[in-house]
Parts: sequence; C-alpha cells; structure tokens
Amino acid sequence: MQEARELCFQNEINVLELPPSSLCFYRDWVAPNRPLIIKNALGHWRALSKWTNDYLRDQIGGKEVTVSVTPNGYADSVVGDRFVMPEERRMKFVDFLDIMRHPTRHSGVFYIQKQNSNFSEEFKELLSDAELHIPWVTDALGRWPDAVNMWMGDSRAVTSMHKDHYENIYCVVKGEKQFILHPPTDAPFIPYDWYLQGRYKEVGGKFDIISEPGEKVPWICIDPLSDLSSSHRLYKVVKPIVCTVRAGEMLYLPSLWFHHVRQSHACIAVNFWYDMDYDVKYNYFQFVSKLSQLWQLQHK
Amino acid sequence: MQEARELCFQNEINVLELPPSSLCFYRDWVAPNRPLIIKNALGHWRALSKWTNDYLRDQIGGKEVTVSVTPNGYADSVVGDRFVMPEERRMKFVDFLDIMRHPTRHSGVFYIQKQNSNFSEEFKELLSDAELHIPWVTDALGRWPDAVNMWMGDSRAVTSMHKDHYENIYCVVKGEKQFILHPPTDAPFIPYDWYLQGRYKEVGGKFDIISEPGEKVPWICIDPLSDLSSSHRLYKVVKPIVCTVRAGEMLYLPSLWFHHVRQSHACIAVNFWYDMDYDVKYNYFQFVSKLSQLWQLQHK
Repeated sequence: MQEARELCFQNEINVLELPPSSLCFYRDWVAPNRPLIIKNALGHWRALSKWTNDYLRDQIGGKEVTVSVTPNGYADSVVGDRFVMPEERRMKFVDFLDIMRHPTRHSGVFYIQKQNSNFSEEFKELLSDAELHIPWVTDALGRWPDAVNMWMGDSRAVTSMHKDHYENIYCVVKGEKQFILHPPTDAPFIPYDWYLQGRYKEVGGKFDIISEPGEKVPWICIDPLSDLSSSHRLYKVVKPIVCTVRAGEMLYLPSLWFHHVRQSHACIAVNFWYDMDYDVKYNYFQFVSKLSQLWQLQHK
Repeated sequence: MQEARELCFQNEINVLELPPSSLCFYRDWVAPNRPLIIKNALGHWRALSKWTNDYLRDQIGGKEVTVSVTPNGYADSVVGDRFVMPEERRMKFVDFLDIMRHPTRHSGVFYIQKQNSNFSEEFKELLSDAELHIPWVTDALGRWPDAVNMWMGDSRAVTSMHKDHYENIYCVVKGEKQFILHPPTDAPFIPYDWYLQGRYKEVGGKFDIISEPGEKVPWICIDPLSDLSSSHRLYKVVKPIVCTVRAGEMLYLPSLWFHHVRQSHACIAVNFWYDMDYDVKYNYFQFVSKLSQLWQLQHK
C-alpha cells in the first residue's frame, strides 16, 4: 500500500490571474483533479464593494437566518466517542452581526454555514450582488450547481477535515479563508473511525451534547491542527497542502479532496457545489479507499 | 483484487452521428476514458471517394514504401518463447497493390502498418485528400498529434492485443476494421509474460525467426481469438468489448485501452496518435497494474 504515495500531486496550489476558458478549466484542472486559485474572477460581483455591515444590516437585518452554534467553533466534528453536530439557531441577521462585533460577550461560537443552498434560500435579497452560478464553470461541467452556500462567522469556527462528492467553487467576498488539503490519493493515510451521533444544545450558557438517533457514522479521526494527530501512525506519512484564499479570489477545490477550513473573523464567502462526474477516476478512488480500509482494519 | 471488476465500463461502444464540440469530447469521452464511434466526421476528406486502386497507383505507384511481412499475419506477437516482429520490406507501392489483388500468389502476409507517422512521411502526396490532424480533437486535447499513420493490408493481418500511451483517433477510409477491446481496469486479468526478441526473415519462400538483440520485453500472452486463451485462469474472468468501424467512421480509442485489431481485405485507415495526459487516472492505472503484477507473480 505504500505505493499509493507515488500517486501524488504537487505541494503548491497553482494560481491563475484570470479565469480560464471552459475547455481549459475542464481539461487542465477538473479532469486531472487539481486544485486552483483564480484571481480577478469576481470583479463583476457588486458584493465585493457593497457587503459592508451597514449595507447587510439595511438589506437583510430583519430577516431570520440559520446560525450554527458550538462551544468551541467545532461543528460536525469528533468529541470523545461521538460525532457532534452544531446547535442550529434561528436568529435575526442583525443580531448575528452584533455577535460578530462582540463575539466574546456571548456564550458559544456562531457560524453561518448551513449547506442547504442557504445563499439562494435564506439570502435572496443579496443574489443580485453576486451570481447564482459561475457561467464558465457551468459551461465546463455541463450542469448547474446543486447548491449555493453562504458562509460567515467567527474566526474560532473550524470546518473539520472531510471530503465532498462535489466540484467546489469557493469564492471569498470579505476577509480570507485558510485551507488545509489532502488529495484523494492520500486516502490510505487519512484514518477514519465510526462514531455515534450527537448535537450541541446550549442550556443556561452551558453546552450539553444530546444524543441523535441513527447508526454510527464514519468520520476522520485526526485533526491537522493537533500535535497528537501529527504523530498518528498513518497520518504522519502525508504532508498537507496549505493555502489562503483572499477577498476577490476563487478556489477550485476538486471533488474528493480532503479539506479543513478556517477563516479570518467575519469573513464572508459564497461557494458553489457542482455534482461530480462518477467516472473512472471515482472508481479508482473507491478501489484504493476500499483496499485502504481493509488494510487499516488488519493493522489496527 | 476481485474488486477491480467493479471498475467497469459499459459493454457497448457509444455512437455519435456527428462530431461533438471540443469541450464535450474532452469532458464526456477523453476525461472518463470512454471509447466512442463518430459517424459523419470524415465527410470532407476527399480520400473517401478518391482512394481507388487506380487513383493510388497514379499518385504514388512508383514510390517506395515500407511494408511489414509475416508468414501468418501476426506482426509484433508471441511465437513460442519469443516476441517476434515482422520483416520490414521496402517495395514500390504499385507492387504492394498487386499483392493485395492476388494475395495467395505470394509467400507471406503483407501489411502497411509502420507506426512512425508514415502517413506524413511516406504518403505525402495523399495528405491533401485527408488531414494532418483532426481540428476539434487538437483543440480538445490542446496539442497536435505526435504521429499520423497509414494502414493498409491483407485480411489475414492481425495486430495482437496491446495498449498505447496515446489518445488514438482511428479513421477508416475503405473497408472496415474489427476491434476487440478491454478497458484499462481489466489490467489485473490481462496476463503478461517476458519474451526474448526476434524478427521474421523470408529466405527462399520460407520464414525464419532471427534473434534480435536486447533485453526480454513484456507482452500480453493471450490471444482473444484462441480457445486456449479463453480458458486462461485470469483472462476468462473478463469479457471483451467488440466493435466494427466502417468506411467514413472514426473510432476514439482512449489511452491505455487494450486492443486487438483485424480488417477487411485491403482496408485503408489513417490514425492519429495524440500524447495522453499523465494525470491522476494514469497514476491510479499504474498503481492497479503494479498491484496486479505482484498478485500475478504470487499466484503463478
């Protein structure tokens, strides 16, 4: 299984100064499953200049939105023997903005991160400041995005390491995002474990973990920020690829890439999830993953 | 290793009535490594109507061309413990045409198949009847072909099962070609062996095999037309995909697909070899191939 390490990518993310043509994007980045940062791709989004706190308060201050709340910023992550999801709280957007201004006055870490196409569902009033899809990406992939999500939150909020079955176009409008990445070919060295499900619930300023119904779920049992993880028998073999995506930049995060995400305080981003092609690359990935699972089970 | 069978393709070759756009060709066929027959892609080639025997005799009858000669039609194939290459004979094209007309009057099977871009090298006078590249393929792949080859020969001539590191565009001008195909994911079930090299040499109407210098070479040790092969422990697991490509049609034969080729008598074809992208698909293929070789060695 060590041979899988030959299947590696470069250790730096390529950067383009302008968006590529649809054909080049597909051929040079999507087909080979290579991440890419694209500058100057969002120049026509009014959001880049308009989305100040005052403007957002005027436009949607009175609207109710869904906010994820956790005691420590870790939503959808492992706590002890559980996979714990955030408390989902409905609040007026103006109240969320106030919390962003004085985060320590409140119990918990607040993050708008609901991945149910919340940009087109909950933030309709802002649609014309951005786009509902990225035309040259839609053309390249031959399909529309399945979801467009809005992200805004506390600098303590962390998205734990995971992978998605989507070609992900991540557009930063304000602040910056830090990504820690591993290519799908690192799968043999990304350890998973199975966890019962739980959910945070704040009661009187303190967070409890409440059991959620359902089977055990598999989740990655390392955290790239923890010293403990960096000495993990498997994980220490691989080297993460780290990048920062700044306001006005777009990250193409290819399908099945493992990613861990943080951001600057009150960073705003919009991402587009396009369904991936389940082609021979996917079949190969499944094959390598299954081999790795068998190997990990035998060497536990 | 049985899991590799999950990595399978359809059992039939898709057919398009017209050439696709460059983007669709790359996205829907090249990137997923799926073969395709395209009808009506060569309508503008004068070759389709002009390449009669009389015309060819007029244009290039006096030219010397390179012809492969074998006793039985098998060039580049296994005979006993050797990998045997054809005798390469220089002759006037008009003499080759005469042999095509009365093949049994001559000792041996004759086939124009020299894959050194012989169309652009040895058949220059015919270039304007066809093309030096396929524009929408060149656009899709972002590169020019490395080689353009001319094929014409006896119905007994066989190209034994092998694979190439090329995206192959195979255009049939006269007659028809029969392909027996296996996707790269069948690699674990395509047995290889190592052979000393030899070459046919006709001496007084009889063919000898002469040793060629060089190391042993790996070659596929089954023949899909042989009953013996169909009961081979590994090969019997997989099912070949069979197709016929007729005059005026184009086959896109993706890189790393195993292929075995026959043709109708005096069939003429021109093929374009475009270098493949050595991307993650290739890495995965190498990984699966190496695993298979280890497995085949252990279970010999």
